[in-house]
Amino acid sequence: MGAITGEFYINRLNQLNNEVWFDGEKVEGLLSEHPAFKGLIKTKASLYDLQHNPKIKDEMTFISPKSGEPIGLSFLQPKTKEDLVKRRKMIEHWARHTYGILGRSPDYLNSVLMSFASSAEILKGQENCFPENVEAFFELVRENDLSLTHTFITPQVNRSQNYFERTNEPISAKIIEENEHGLVIKGARLLATQGGLTDEVLVFGGGKAVFAEDEAFAFAIPSNTKGVKFICRDTFIGGDSHFDHPLSSRYEEIDSIIVFDNVLVPWERIFFYNNFEIAGKFLMESSFHHFAKYQVTIRQIVKTEFILGIAELLVDTINVREYQHIHEKLSEIIVGLETMKALLEKSENNAVLDKWGYLRPAIFPLKVAGNIFSKLYPRYIEIIQLIGASGMITLPTKKAFHSDIRADLDQYLQGATKTAEDRVKIFRLAWDLTMSSFGTRQMQYERFFFGDSIRAASELYFTYPKKEYVEVVIDFLKQKEDL
Amino acid sequence: MGAITGEFYINRLNQLNNEVWFDGEKVEGLLSEHPAFKGLIKTKASLYDLQHNPKIKDEMTFISPKSGEPIGLSFLQPKTKEDLVKRRKMIEHWARHTYGILGRSPDYLNSVLMSFASSAEILKGQENCFPENVEAFFELVRENDLSLTHTFITPQVNRSQNYFERTNEPISAKIIEENEHGLVIKGARLLATQGGLTDEVLVFGGGKAVFAEDEAFAFAIPSNTKGVKFICRDTFIGGDSHFDHPLSSRYEEIDSIIVFDNVLVPWERIFFYNNFEIAGKFLMESSFHHFAKYQVTIRQIVKTEFILGIAELLVDTINVREYQHIHEKLSEIIVGLETMKALLEKSENNAVLDKWGYLRPAIFPLKVAGNIFSKLYPRYIEIIQLIGASGMITLPTKKAFHSDIRADLDQYLQGATKTAEDRVKIFRLAWDLTMSSFGTRQMQYERFFFGDSIRAASELYFTYPKKEYVEVVIDFLKQKEDL
Amino acid sequence: MGAITGEFYINRLNQLNNEVWFDGEKVEGLLSEHPAFKGLIKTKASLYDLQHNPKIKDEMTFISPKSGEPIGLSFLQPKTKEDLVKRRKMIEHWARHTYGILGRSPDYLNSVLMSFASSAEILKGQENCFPENVEAFFELVRENDLSLTHTFITPQVNRSQNYFERTNEPISAKIIEENEHGLVIKGARLLATQGGLTDEVLVFGGGKAVFAEDEAFAFAIPSNTKGVKFICRDTFIGGDSHFDHPLSSRYEEIDSIIVFDNVLVPWERIFFYNNFEIAGKFLMESSFHHFAKYQVTIRQIVKTEFILGIAELLVDTINVREYQHIHEKLSEIIVGLETMKALLEKSENNAVLDKWGYLRPAIFPLKVAGNIFSKLYPRYIEIIQLIGASGMITLPTKKAFHSDIRADLDQYLQGATKTAEDRVKIFRLAWDLTMSSFGTRQMQYERFFFGDSIRAASELYFTYPKKEYVEVVIDFLKQKEDL
Amino acid sequence: MGAITGEFYINRLNQLNNEVWFDGEKVEGLLSEHPAFKGLIKTKASLYDLQHNPKIKDEMTFISPKSGEPIGLSFLQPKTKEDLVKRRKMIEHWARHTYGILGRSPDYLNSVLMSFASSAEILKGQENCFPENVEAFFELVRENDLSLTHTFITPQVNRSQNYFERTNEPISAKIIEENEHGLVIKGARLLATQGGLTDEVLVFGGGKAVFAEDEAFAFAIPSNTKGVKFICRDTFIGGDSHFDHPLSSRYEEIDSIIVFDNVLVPWERIFFYNNFEIAGKFLMESSFHHFAKYQVTIRQIVKTEFILGIAELLVDTINVREYQHIHEKLSEIIVGLETMKALLEKSENNAVLDKWGYLRPAIFPLKVAGNIFSKLYPRYIEIIQLIGASGMITLPTKKAFHSDIRADLDQYLQGATKTAEDRVKIFRLAWDLTMSSFGTRQMQYERFFFGDSIRAASELYFTYPKKEYVEVVIDFLKQKEDL
Repeated sequence: MGAITGEFYINRLNQLNNEVWFDGEKVEGLLSEHPAFKGLIKTKASLYDLQHNPKIKDEMTFISPKSGEPIGLSFLQPKTKEDLVKRRKMIEHWARHTYGILGRSPDYLNSVLMSFASSAEILKGQENCFPENVEAFFELVRENDLSLTHTFITPQVNRSQNYFERTNEPISAKIIEENEHGLVIKGARLLATQGGLTDEVLVFGGGKAVFAEDEAFAFAIPSNTKGVKFICRDTFIGGDSHFDHPLSSRYEEIDSIIVFDNVLVPWERIFFYNNFEIAGKFLMESSFHHFAKYQVTIRQIVKTEFILGIAELLVDTINVREYQHIHEKLSEIIVGLETMKALLEKSENNAVLDKWGYLRPAIFPLKVAGNIFSKLYPRYIEIIQLIGASGMITLPTKKAFHSDIRADLDQYLQGATKTAEDRVKIFRLAWDLTMSSFGTRQMQYERFFFGDSIRAASELYFTYPKKEYVEVVIDFLKQKEDL
Repeated sequence: MGAITGEFYINRLNQLNNEVWFDGEKVEGLLSEHPAFKGLIKTKASLYDLQHNPKIKDEMTFISPKSGEPIGLSFLQPKTKEDLVKRRKMIEHWARHTYGILGRSPDYLNSVLMSFASSAEILKGQENCFPENVEAFFELVRENDLSLTHTFITPQVNRSQNYFERTNEPISAKIIEENEHGLVIKGARLLATQGGLTDEVLVFGGGKAVFAEDEAFAFAIPSNTKGVKFICRDTFIGGDSHFDHPLSSRYEEIDSIIVFDNVLVPWERIFFYNNFEIAGKFLMESSFHHFAKYQVTIRQIVKTEFILGIAELLVDTINVREYQHIHEKLSEIIVGLETMKALLEKSENNAVLDKWGYLRPAIFPLKVAGNIFSKLYPRYIEIIQLIGASGMITLPTKKAFHSDIRADLDQYLQGATKTAEDRVKIFRLAWDLTMSSFGTRQMQYERFFFGDSIRAASELYFTYPKKEYVEVVIDFLKQKEDL
Repeated sequence: MGAITGEFYINRLNQLNNEVWFDGEKVEGLLSEHPAFKGLIKTKASLYDLQHNPKIKDEMTFISPKSGEPIGLSFLQPKTKEDLVKRRKMIEHWARHTYGILGRSPDYLNSVLMSFASSAEILKGQENCFPENVEAFFELVRENDLSLTHTFITPQVNRSQNYFERTNEPISAKIIEENEHGLVIKGARLLATQGGLTDEVLVFGGGKAVFAEDEAFAFAIPSNTKGVKFICRDTFIGGDSHFDHPLSSRYEEIDSIIVFDNVLVPWERIFFYNNFEIAGKFLMESSFHHFAKYQVTIRQIVKTEFILGIAELLVDTINVREYQHIHEKLSEIIVGLETMKALLEKSENNAVLDKWGYLRPAIFPLKVAGNIFSKLYPRYIEIIQLIGASGMITLPTKKAFHSDIRADLDQYLQGATKTAEDRVKIFRLAWDLTMSSFGTRQMQYERFFFGDSIRAASELYFTYPKKEYVEVVIDFLKQKEDL
Repeated sequence: MGAITGEFYINRLNQLNNEVWFDGEKVEGLLSEHPAFKGLIKTKASLYDLQHNPKIKDEMTFISPKSGEPIGLSFLQPKTKEDLVKRRKMIEHWARHTYGILGRSPDYLNSVLMSFASSAEILKGQENCFPENVEAFFELVRENDLSLTHTFITPQVNRSQNYFERTNEPISAKIIEENEHGLVIKGARLLATQGGLTDEVLVFGGGKAVFAEDEAFAFAIPSNTKGVKFICRDTFIGGDSHFDHPLSSRYEEIDSIIVFDNVLVPWERIFFYNNFEIAGKFLMESSFHHFAKYQVTIRQIVKTEFILGIAELLVDTINVREYQHIHEKLSEIIVGLETMKALLEKSENNAVLDKWGYLRPAIFPLKVAGNIFSKLYPRYIEIIQLIGASGMITLPTKKAFHSDIRADLDQYLQGATKTAEDRVKIFRLAWDLTMSSFGTRQMQYERFFFGDSIRAASELYFTYPKKEYVEVVIDFLKQKEDL
């Protein structure tokens, strides 16, 4: 089959009949027509269509080593700098198509799965580990262009370091039975973005320092597996109108809690289980962080460009270019953009071959990029709010522009260089990015992408090689004092 | 008549038939039943009812010097420290009733008008000035407990310092005719909070450094004056449910653009006009800033207490009290709270009698309070978001709790010390305060309450007495060097 | 004897023959003539002389209840608001005399000792406790106006929370013997400011969370007790010239390590020992923090005024008043100053009588003041550096102004409103405050006055009453949802 | 002659007899033996010696196209990526030899002069311009390895934007006469680092936006030209001992005011004059900023590595590795280091050939690096101070370690992993970097390297290409609304 089209994606998804709950109701009709999901599904379909856009098809696909069909480039396992660059261009195409706003374009999880398959040998010969299942699942997804969600985060019951779940019934998803057909899972996982709106679900061991053996597993199952329920959070779509809600009407990706109600995961879909050591090791030693962070950094750069464009357009619209504090604010975005670009470039230029022959982008520039973006992004949001000031509040709707009051709006809401309608469109975009419930969820998403910034700082500190710098100082101190 | 009840307020308002436009439609039915306004109107009614609550009636009203009836304490012109303290208690009652969330409880504009009346003598004998109209209007409002909105801000067409409007048709409201009946006004004003939902509108000269004589006026007119249109922005009410939208369903105060379509303002309602000098002087030398900032500071303290309560409850709910960075974040709120309280207390203790015999709270502590709160508030919002983390996203609705999925929610969304339902209620409150479009509008409101922080800093610097401190340094430098 | 003069202070100190080590040498001559100490001693003498200055003598002294002589007001145990205000004025006089720069004017430790004496009853009836010794020592110091230093900080060997000293020989001072004459102490204490330059040393239990019984003591001994050695750090005096080093030549207070070389502390000088519980309790429940922080806050306010004066004088000298970022920087100092003043005032207005009848300033405003000043002060330093820019570097000496090159200096170093010499004097003052090793030590001193800011934040969080604010939120959440 | 040795440098310098004033006295003896200069001169000599170190000689020199002798690599005019990389390595060698502390190693001004020579064609055919003089001077310096200082900054009399000097006698250096031999200059320039301690002085047009034609010049003259006086600021050397003052005793680079007392600059040393337009254009369009910022960025990276080493060594010494806030602080330095490295690499990878065939490092990554380092550096200083805490204060001298008190020091100042002597050496290094007057001057130097950060932000904003990003947003807004 190979790289799919948008239409194919929609049809396949609609036929799954996933058990999705929204606002207290089980979704019964077609997912693609549900008000809470249709915008996202249309947007994702347009991404899949890019794979067949004649202008960039060659940059979005490559030939399957298995079928000889063109398949998605996000599945390419890079062995050379050229491969890496190809991957970057593919990611850029998809990111640009949604202005970096869509957090989970298909390349994100495709890259994650690719990294797992490329590192499957870590599992070889280990207890309760099935590297061949990882590889087979990767091939299945790659050849059929299946869509994925995943889930790492355990329920936020108690965030104490010393908390260890001791309830009668599992809260966090656990293995409750092991039988000839597979493992039986019961419990929940939090925050699967697009959960219920994909073909498959990838489930990984809890992102906590302390967890039990019965949570130390990884597997993948079809979204419509019996007993799997997706409970959506409230929607952050402000409304259908692209004028009024330019971003949320298109890009709102619902998040959902995944409930496993005695779900049987067949053996061939188990990557590993009951192996606490491997659960940590697989994430640490595979190229997961390399390729996940690489995709994320590219998308965040595209998003930053979009933000810089919006900021500059605001400056123009209300003519505030003469103020020094405006220069400082805009230059902060520029500094952030150039910095992210430099770190990305460094990660590419310093990529290293791993022991299985795959080329991994250098990890430290990407860690640093993730570290700073989690702080830069909220600051960008603040900058947009500070430039827009009261203009971010006075926001009439599209309907108002199509009513008897239009002449008043045209006169009183005009900008220095823009008609009232254009001005309102620009401000509504700025508002949807920074002040709507969609925009604030995006901020939380970027802020916590790879966990909280304090833990990320500790991790960076402990893993970064510091020894040679300490030795330079020790050498300095050893100098003869009469030099 | 004196202090009114909530019911009286609602009935009077409904009878006005103000011309209010919402989402492209002219509002035709009762304002108090319109989905965009009913929450606010109910809330305001409950505030008016407090004036008749037997427990605190004496702290909410005083006896009219004119009618002998109890009237609202926000109209009291303070002459003693006791008067000031009475005013503070009244403001606290109203602020606590809405947790400091409602920006424009009646005491705000009542205090403003009281300050104008108490300073009306500035206008005495000046060209085109009518101090008697200010006093008469104050008495009218006081005796009838009329509700007010006001508007300072001119359309945000062009924010350059050198911009001077030169269009054929006015954009910013201007005097276009002067006749025997009064002045004719044409043009618009931005951002009247609750505009259209009050009995009267107070209009003041533009808040810009540079503006023309024909914008140098102040007057008050009934909201239903012919030619006055209120064009509302889009609503930030998330929905009717108090569970899902605990704040916006109750406290969303719409903002509106006020359009003056050849509006005749009768002479007896004109405070001054065509007097550029007085337009600046009246705001600078009256007690406007003193009493406006005093009310705002009290409300902001109450709001900070509410925020501290929410933050601590979040800490409790997910059990993160062991983390040092949590202590730092909470202590930031505590520091802000104690600081604001100290500044308020200082403004009271150092209050000064003005030349007309009224006691004004000291201005510098209040300026400083305004200055810091505009930065503290966004930081509080950020702190709540950082504590809540992913829990701010996973927000099912009330309907979900009343559906077949409830048992799952009960199990998987429980908190360390709370049931799932209580936990979700707490997080929805935190979310509505910090991440809903209602919450972000509140942030913008607090941030820009008295204009942008950069101009406020300049103003503080230039007005603050620094000379004595410079002289100390000069004395130091003059010391004999062999001391 | 009562309140002493500067001359008396110097003579008494010189006769002690304390064992003071400076730069590898034991100081042999008169302390008051040693280059590293003479500036400080002269300055302190001038402070004692203020007690006899006819203009303010009544504000600096009160009549001893014992001798009937005038004694220092810093020994007054306040029972009324008037007493507190008297104390504040006395502290202000001394602080103003040294522009808030001298960290340890006599009132600091006098206030500390007064707080101990006023809280001595905590020790009553407790094991190994001698409240009568505290009271007797207080009376001795008060009646003789003895000068004091104290030491809290243990050697910085290992700052891990879990570190517990297990060396053969004590590092941190410990009780190594108990005999009929008293206790024998061996080991060291860090950072006694003015250590060696005072009549007496006050020694308190280690400021660590974890320490052993044998470090749980408090006592006072004469500085010249056998076995007590003061090892001074390097001096931060830049030179003798008041022109070149306006602050360090006058106010450099040396710090020293105190070594106890088998020192016998007689029983009558022991306050308590071998009582771990009391060691913590005495500091927590006495009025120590109240009166220490009160004195410090007053001094810091005076210092802030001096800094504001310097900043404004710099602005003037190089004529940068037109820049918005300058307004922001100066307004930051103003905001800090007003805030500190408000907090101080609040601590006075909300003072509470303790169970022994003494009036303590309210503690939370003072904790908050300490908390913020530790961050404000380094920012002030940065602001001065940013205003002064390259002018902080080009600093010729006084000798250059008295040489053949003077005409060049006069021409090329003139300021917009100042002669070259005045300009250089101003900049040297700004430099000495912010960039000399004296200035940076002052910064570290203010920053860490009451320990590191992170621990202070935890302490504030845990002690601050938050319950009532949480309850308000819980009440809010309990509201009927159909309100 | 070619690349010189340290000894040659010292001898040549000593013979110049420059007129250098220090502390009110004209320096009479050998510069290399003067206490204020000897440390620096020895350090610079050791740098020149590196050019003859057999291990790296090939990386420090290249063959002169003129003489065939090996000459300094800092004079290489790069045409290829390889050339750039060679330059980087040479800069790294010199920077590492002084740990990035020496601001003005010879490569800095050599690079500046190289950039001028490589851009001399800008002057071709322009009024009062002499490109051949630039080239000839470059060749002279290159072939003789002459040392240079330069001066940009005009006296800090009045920093108002509107200030225009109107004194009778020049303050800022000006042309006061033009005759057959050359131009006569009178007036002063500020802040020539190492002024008086180099062979030649490079003088450039004022770094102000507004200045007159008679300040629009550029030239170079020998330091011992008649009428040239160097007036040094006070020294920031703490003392001779490398133990006590590890940095200032070696690296203190004096700054001086240069006075031109009717100095005749011969025509062949004039680059241009009386050409206001060229004065701006030459700096803007030449590769000056590219190569200056490139050198500075490399040095700042080396310095950051040194700082990271010191920070980590402090953490080790007092064993504070367990604290999360320590991880955050160290990770800030790591983030800064990786960011600077990435920006440098990007500037190399994206280098562009200019119209004269020379390869310039890309400018925006370097501007961004300069922009952030001016903020990072003061933060690093603060981090070191915060880690060191009270340990930064208790600093005995080397003499104390060689006295009878040594056993006490050994016992009481030991660190968790270090002897007392090693611990004190580490802390003295940290102190000299961050708290001595040498260290604070370094901070000011890094902070203001390319002017104040506010002007730098404006410059970055205005020069950065933003158009394409704005167009993306405009395209987004043009999307059909029914997509």
